[in-house]
Amino acid sequence: MTDLNTSRSGNTANHHGLNAIQDGLVHAEGGGDALLRLDDVVFLLLDHQSGLFQVVKDISVAELRANTAMLAKLAALMKIPVITTASVPDGPNGPLMPEIHQFAPHAVYVPRKGEVNAWDNELFVQTVRETGRRTLVIAGVWTSVCVMFPALDALAAGFNVYAVVDASGDPSEMASRITLARFSQAGVVPISANAVLCELQRTWNRPDAAEIAQLYTLVAPNYAAVLESYNRAQDAALHPARPVPELTHK
Amino acid sequence: MTDLNTSRSGNTANHHGLNAIQDGLVHAEGGGDALLRLDDVVFLLLDHQSGLFQVVKDISVAELRANTAMLAKLAALMKIPVITTASVPDGPNGPLMPEIHQFAPHAVYVPRKGEVNAWDNELFVQTVRETGRRTLVIAGVWTSVCVMFPALDALAAGFNVYAVVDASGDPSEMASRITLARFSQAGVVPISANAVLCELQRTWNRPDAAEIAQLYTLVAPNYAAVLESYNRAQDAALHPARPVPELTHK
Amino acid sequence: MTDLNTSRSGNTANHHGLNAIQDGLVHAEGGGDALLRLDDVVFLLLDHQSGLFQVVKDISVAELRANTAMLAKLAALMKIPVITTASVPDGPNGPLMPEIHQFAPHAVYVPRKGEVNAWDNELFVQTVRETGRRTLVIAGVWTSVCVMFPALDALAAGFNVYAVVDASGDPSEMASRITLARFSQAGVVPISANAVLCELQRTWNRPDAAEIAQLYTLVAPNYAAVLESYNRAQDAALHPARPVPELTHK
Amino acid sequence: MTDLNTSRSGNTANHHGLNAIQDGLVHAEGGGDALLRLDDVVFLLLDHQSGLFQVVKDISVAELRANTAMLAKLAALMKIPVITTASVPDGPNGPLMPEIHQFAPHAVYVPRKGEVNAWDNELFVQTVRETGRRTLVIAGVWTSVCVMFPALDALAAGFNVYAVVDASGDPSEMASRITLARFSQAGVVPISANAVLCELQRTWNRPDAAEIAQLYTLVAPNYAAVLESYNRAQDAALHPARPVPELTHK
Amino acid sequence: MTDLNTSRSGNTANHHGLNAIQDGLVHAEGGGDALLRLDDVVFLLLDHQSGLFQVVKDISVAELRANTAMLAKLAALMKIPVITTASVPDGPNGPLMPEIHQFAPHAVYVPRKGEVNAWDNELFVQTVRETGRRTLVIAGVWTSVCVMFPALDALAAGFNVYAVVDASGDPSEMASRITLARFSQAGVVPISANAVLCELQRTWNRPDAAEIAQLYTLVAPNYAAVLESYNRAQDAALHPARPVPELTHK
Amino acid sequence: MTDLNTSRSGNTANHHGLNAIQDGLVHAEGGGDALLRLDDVVFLLLDHQSGLFQVVKDISVAELRANTAMLAKLAALMKIPVITTASVPDGPNGPLMPEIHQFAPHAVYVPRKGEVNAWDNELFVQTVRETGRRTLVIAGVWTSVCVMFPALDALAAGFNVYAVVDASGDPSEMASRITLARFSQAGVVPISANAVLCELQRTWNRPDAAEIAQLYTLVAPNYAAVLESYNRAQDAALHPARPVPELTHK
Amino acid sequence: MTDLNTSRSGNTANHHGLNAIQDGLVHAEGGGDALLRLDDVVFLLLDHQSGLFQVVKDISVAELRANTAMLAKLAALMKIPVITTASVPDGPNGPLMPEIHQFAPHAVYVPRKGEVNAWDNELFVQTVRETGRRTLVIAGVWTSVCVMFPALDALAAGFNVYAVVDASGDPSEMASRITLARFSQAGVVPISANAVLCELQRTWNRPDAAEIAQLYTLVAPNYAAVLESYNRAQDAALHPARPVPELTHK
Amino acid sequence: MTDLNTSRSGNTANHHGLNAIQDGLVHAEGGGDALLRLDDVVFLLLDHQSGLFQVVKDISVAELRANTAMLAKLAALMKIPVITTASVPDGPNGPLMPEIHQFAPHAVYVPRKGEVNAWDNELFVQTVRETGRRTLVIAGVWTSVCVMFPALDALAAGFNVYAVVDASGDPSEMASRITLARFSQAGVVPISANAVLCELQRTWNRPDAAEIAQLYTLVAPNYAAVLESYNRAQDAALHPARPVPELTHK
Repeated sequence: MTDLNTSRSGNTANHHGLNAIQDGLVHAEGGGDALLRLDDVVFLLLDHQSGLFQVVKDISVAELRANTAMLAKLAALMKIPVITTASVPDGPNGPLMPEIHQFAPHAVYVPRKGEVNAWDNELFVQTVRETGRRTLVIAGVWTSVCVMFPALDALAAGFNVYAVVDASGDPSEMASRITLARFSQAGVVPISANAVLCELQRTWNRPDAAEIAQLYTLVAPNYAAVLESYNRAQDAALHPARPVPELTHK
Repeated sequence: MTDLNTSRSGNTANHHGLNAIQDGLVHAEGGGDALLRLDDVVFLLLDHQSGLFQVVKDISVAELRANTAMLAKLAALMKIPVITTASVPDGPNGPLMPEIHQFAPHAVYVPRKGEVNAWDNELFVQTVRETGRRTLVIAGVWTSVCVMFPALDALAAGFNVYAVVDASGDPSEMASRITLARFSQAGVVPISANAVLCELQRTWNRPDAAEIAQLYTLVAPNYAAVLESYNRAQDAALHPARPVPELTHK
Repeated sequence: MTDLNTSRSGNTANHHGLNAIQDGLVHAEGGGDALLRLDDVVFLLLDHQSGLFQVVKDISVAELRANTAMLAKLAALMKIPVITTASVPDGPNGPLMPEIHQFAPHAVYVPRKGEVNAWDNELFVQTVRETGRRTLVIAGVWTSVCVMFPALDALAAGFNVYAVVDASGDPSEMASRITLARFSQAGVVPISANAVLCELQRTWNRPDAAEIAQLYTLVAPNYAAVLESYNRAQDAALHPARPVPELTHK
Repeated sequence: MTDLNTSRSGNTANHHGLNAIQDGLVHAEGGGDALLRLDDVVFLLLDHQSGLFQVVKDISVAELRANTAMLAKLAALMKIPVITTASVPDGPNGPLMPEIHQFAPHAVYVPRKGEVNAWDNELFVQTVRETGRRTLVIAGVWTSVCVMFPALDALAAGFNVYAVVDASGDPSEMASRITLARFSQAGVVPISANAVLCELQRTWNRPDAAEIAQLYTLVAPNYAAVLESYNRAQDAALHPARPVPELTHK
Repeated sequence: MTDLNTSRSGNTANHHGLNAIQDGLVHAEGGGDALLRLDDVVFLLLDHQSGLFQVVKDISVAELRANTAMLAKLAALMKIPVITTASVPDGPNGPLMPEIHQFAPHAVYVPRKGEVNAWDNELFVQTVRETGRRTLVIAGVWTSVCVMFPALDALAAGFNVYAVVDASGDPSEMASRITLARFSQAGVVPISANAVLCELQRTWNRPDAAEIAQLYTLVAPNYAAVLESYNRAQDAALHPARPVPELTHK
Repeated sequence: MTDLNTSRSGNTANHHGLNAIQDGLVHAEGGGDALLRLDDVVFLLLDHQSGLFQVVKDISVAELRANTAMLAKLAALMKIPVITTASVPDGPNGPLMPEIHQFAPHAVYVPRKGEVNAWDNELFVQTVRETGRRTLVIAGVWTSVCVMFPALDALAAGFNVYAVVDASGDPSEMASRITLARFSQAGVVPISANAVLCELQRTWNRPDAAEIAQLYTLVAPNYAAVLESYNRAQDAALHPARPVPELTHK
Repeated sequence: MTDLNTSRSGNTANHHGLNAIQDGLVHAEGGGDALLRLDDVVFLLLDHQSGLFQVVKDISVAELRANTAMLAKLAALMKIPVITTASVPDGPNGPLMPEIHQFAPHAVYVPRKGEVNAWDNELFVQTVRETGRRTLVIAGVWTSVCVMFPALDALAAGFNVYAVVDASGDPSEMASRITLARFSQAGVVPISANAVLCELQRTWNRPDAAEIAQLYTLVAPNYAAVLESYNRAQDAALHPARPVPELTHK
Repeated sequence: MTDLNTSRSGNTANHHGLNAIQDGLVHAEGGGDALLRLDDVVFLLLDHQSGLFQVVKDISVAELRANTAMLAKLAALMKIPVITTASVPDGPNGPLMPEIHQFAPHAVYVPRKGEVNAWDNELFVQTVRETGRRTLVIAGVWTSVCVMFPALDALAAGFNVYAVVDASGDPSEMASRITLARFSQAGVVPISANAVLCELQRTWNRPDAAEIAQLYTLVAPNYAAVLESYNRAQDAALHPARPVPELTHK
């Protein structure tokens, strides 16, 4: 691991010279200097548990699950390490949402012994450190707790820390605003799921562009209809003589 | 087809004596007298087109698609006739959402020749009449147009008409409130997707209860987490000695 | 049971001459002619189950539980019959909220055999009929299903029916508006919990006025502070010489 | 003018047999029986004055003007009579929005002598009657006043009356809900601007379809982007070899 | 008092032939047939008490007080009878807002003996009847209780009844929607304060037009700025040479 | 003027030792160290013009005017210098709201010659400097412009700057959030009108406490009802034998 | 008291080496470095008075009281010092909510002599200093005043300061946003009640876990239903043969 | 290009001495020190594409387009360089909104080769650098991506950066709040479209004042009505004898 000149805010955490090649893509000089580096990122998905979902009130559970599932799929596609954990999954807080390990089969699950703050668990911290990555992209439920506590501790330990606020959830709109302000004040970079996706995608000029487009439909459901309309419009342009269809079981 | 003593509102459209056996279930006397009859219902899914989805503003497209997909799955499960249509799918309004015919392969597609009001199309009306059903459960985009117009015409023609407002969409919140008021005033019964589901389900004491529970997760996404929590809680109760898991690729 | 000249809407369901004495209170002639009669009312509290609470999105669960608890306490105070029921309380939908039977120990619980619509269950309908009451005040989860279905069936069977919409819950704001419109159209009287309370209270000039005031704090939490301020203001008026208190463990 | 069997609600005000040809289009039997008839409609656009716009709070003035401008353009396109009026345009309430007479140059302006209710003005009522039309489509500011009062009076005088609620405006959200309820109760048909457009369009299979599509962009601004995307997609399909463009002043 | 051919809805309660002269104004034939008659209206302002204001949540107390104050001023200006009442003003519910009797010194206050429903109080009903008016315009806190109960009873007793919903207040948004639906269903006409004002004003061509314009600023606060801008614009037009003012204590 | 050790944020701008006596009140050591100093504050009320009020959308004009009027009254009560200005009051933007100079007759009006940014006007800056005050409390319309520009310039010139966001107004909710973020980032202290009031009041133990309580009713209208309830409760406590009042013109 | 290396923001205020044992729990190295230390925290609950509750508009009073009551219970459970105060509890602002001293009987009440800012009161500051704690967790009404003023002064005096925004209340949504921005800018750490709870809980592996779970139901009412569902599911798993219950007074 | 003493935040980026003459206007000393300099600004309008508009949910597309069109018109009026770009306009994301190049014909379009981040494209960065301007005013869709990425990179490269948040769009309200917080934290200045307009206008005392007033109607649609009212009021003042107009085709 190179010695990084990390800053608190993370927003300016990047690294001149290295970036242009780190993800196999060639960028203009300075391009992405302030963005996430694909080879330095690890995803921490914390306590996305079914019982806790019931006490999330700042985002719909449907959106929360879709954004989180996108992160899992993105990690699988781009080979980003993923670490999951839950404190007491046999208790009322319930099991992890199954989509994470389903979509990111390479994810490593770290059991906890009841600690609320994942950073209080030695195995968890050790697992993070062993990735060699210095930029933590964290999501979890509650945002104000399960994301906030390890984010603050990791920041104190010298990591760059991003909080994916819309792949996380808080118990009220007011708590959500409070949490966002606390992240900003402390130097944790708040980020939305769609920005994580784009920040790591970097270009449409890549072999997996179609798979990435599908990920857009998770963070922005209208995008599915955009794709459907586009494909039909092109099809109609190329086959303008399509006769009016017969009554049919389509 | 029996001769029905239909009413405008539909809310009281049911039919003493017959109901108890029409769906293969035995109900108490009077049970379901005012509810949908499974053997009299046809689903009309109108103009759920990708271009039109972009101009829906009273419901998220994610919810609109999920509720509509539920109707398609419900129809397949309970063998309810489904008729779909689109006015100009090769034009900007775009193609039908593919989930409908995917989940309800028995659905019949009726092409239109540009008519905005499906009831203006003879083939469509004829297809509806040939089902022999007298209770129309209609959803579509826009609610104020693609649902409203055939709903009013069908009501004038003597059908019972229900509008599934949340499997439909309108271009503004205000339009949505206006449309709901117009339905009520005219005698079209407004109904939500979850109520259609439950009104036809009638009982949990049936072989397909597990499949129906899955449909609940479409109209109420939190229900998925309810099921997950429930299953884990029971599993934990029966296997209380579960040791703390090792670090693992779960 | 007197023979009632009931109307569909219930809003005008009252009964000249009788009302003045039915609840032990003396009213002006015509007073309460269009209101609930204490001696004709039965409360039906349906499917207030913990699992279903997680899929309620048109009212906070805190408010829903508080309004429902108020109904239970009101029933106990005024000796109104209460019937509760749940379809499959051992399943994911969960057990009834315990406050109901805690606050209304006289409530009768009717088990169901899986029927979604309580009116499909013979024992339930029989229990309702045995009360001899003709005015049903119904609350439940979901409003669009567990309240709507028996409400419509009971209306068809000749009962006066009120739906306590804010002691009930629906899976979305849109579903809630749809449900309210369907109630109105069908002739079910929509009512809020605070109105049920006041409609049966009728006067502050009664021995249990203080207990009733406590019920107001459940349906309108600010009322607690109104009472606290009032009491302190009167106390301060009567004891103006109160010295500045010492530092104290109060 | 034929003798009409009008109903209060207007929703069922149509006219078997005649409808199929009244607008030059051929519909299926029963198609449009409950819809607006092009040859029986007159638009009344009342008091859309710049001073009053400042006190509209249930819709943005941008949307209100766009919806009203659409009605003016639609009237010009389909040769629907339009009557405008203002009570005291030289006073603080200000002049009419100029778009109406700009887009509908055939509109007739009736000055009033201070009457709040246009139906109190003899010249206005006479002008309406002279059109020979029996179906009034009314919009104005405030909805609760300038639309409501003539709507109620015209209904009493035997006209069919529609209120275009989103081409009108009220001083608060609460006033808006109240007004909608009063329309419904009284038998005035509430309708949205997009529904008026579609109800008179009836089919895309007409020479002016492209002009009508432009009207959609006024009532649903996203529709403009739908059209733009569609056209570009078709263009791209037909010209796939388009080289990457040079840096250019496009 | 003439014998009135009253209807339940009130919306069509007016009276051909008489209307043209009842308020000293000359209207077109049919003008105002369906509107309030100035000589048949009485205002009932019920329980606008300071303690109850704290439990109103569907409208701001500032707006509620302003709308109610407007009704008081309007009544004084147009000599409309006003009856006020409170159940227990010495208790926690507090005293009436002083503006009512301040602005409408002719208002008659009827004390109650604890009755929640004013129509349960003989003196109140007698006072209403003695006005000889048959059209009751009611506002109060809570809408669902203090307005609803006498409204329903008065309707049953043959009066025309209007509920001024935004000069009233309910304990939640949901309760407010429920109440509005119940009014509509029962035949009570829902109306906003600004519509009451305009319905009785009828014309700007009257000596007290300036006083009426001031009332508009209570129900629509932006109207004050409209007037201020208008006056300054006219002043500037007539005095264009106004030099740039000196620094001054203006 | 003492030489101040000012900071950018202003939040910590206070001044040990001096504060305890600057406003004639004795505070604990350290009390108010970080608060506004009465003897260092000047109010700048910029462009509260009737035409601009019509384009404010993040706060109701009623609240905006009430909060601004409170500032004027507070300034008069506490002898705080007030400077007002308008760019082109004879143009469409209209005249200043009259309440400011009515309630704060000592306010100095500085005419501008069309400058949007008051700090671009030499006379304005000179008038500010001549007060000798170093802490500017600014409100105006638009917040993002008329407050922001002089706030940023004054900050650059070494003043402490507070922006009273709710005595100001912006053209959209989004603009309002943007403006608040820009203030925070730049070091302008955002503050609400009620906080300005309390920060300068410091204690209820002062001769003008009753006048101050009246100011609370402007920034928090429910406070009027709190006072009314309190006074009536005390009155009722002291006069418990109050007989039930006769029917009376109260 | 150890000599602390405090920072303004508090977010990074913790203390390597000490933390692992300060609360009797063993954490991983670095775990909790940036979190609240149980042995350094004191709760300041300021001016939670019934009269002031009526002027809170950014959070429901029910939620505000529940969150504050949770803090009191948490303090009792974990033996955290609590200091309460009120400025003029015999005046209109009313008495403290009784739950605080009821649930935290060890709390110390400090009377004030009218000071708005508690930090202006010598006894209050002295009481805070005597705890020897350096981290102040403050809640109160109004947030912008009663929390803000002592928070800023305490920060200036070298304390770490947290503001529990949702156990506090402000007079408008806009004031609430302003206050949050001011906290962030000044270095006061904004925090939600649920985060305070979790930050001090640290682990579920403690004897009082069940009592803590009950505290969750106060800050997130849905959690009660989560617990109820969990317990019933486990019970049903262990007793699957439960027969259908008889009709019973449960 | 002068050597600028730039700061990260941009809010204090201005330049004593130079500012007074840079835009041809004479300002007071210090006036505009902290504001945008007309001669140092370049507008970057990125990816305003029709397909992406469908996935914007934090602002209406109508407002987004109007604000962006205003920027284009402003640039043309004031001769500000404009650079536009799109990544893959032939793909589903669609073409640029045509208004930009229509209203700002001098704008330079830079094609990209699929890069999501415009700063990754060498030609784009080179084009920016060749303007010689050091202050970038950026808008685009999505805000969190297409604006954020080049904003962060440009900041790292030493530019002053402003983000016009309401001429941009994000896929959810929550994403929008996250983005705003990230801008603030990183030192990108958030700004609203109306503030950009006013910050460059500086004074109404300029020949193009009327054209600028028209731009206000784009960012604040009510302003159009303000102008219309003003003009009519002046006209009416000067022509008071205007007779009541005849019935006319106006």
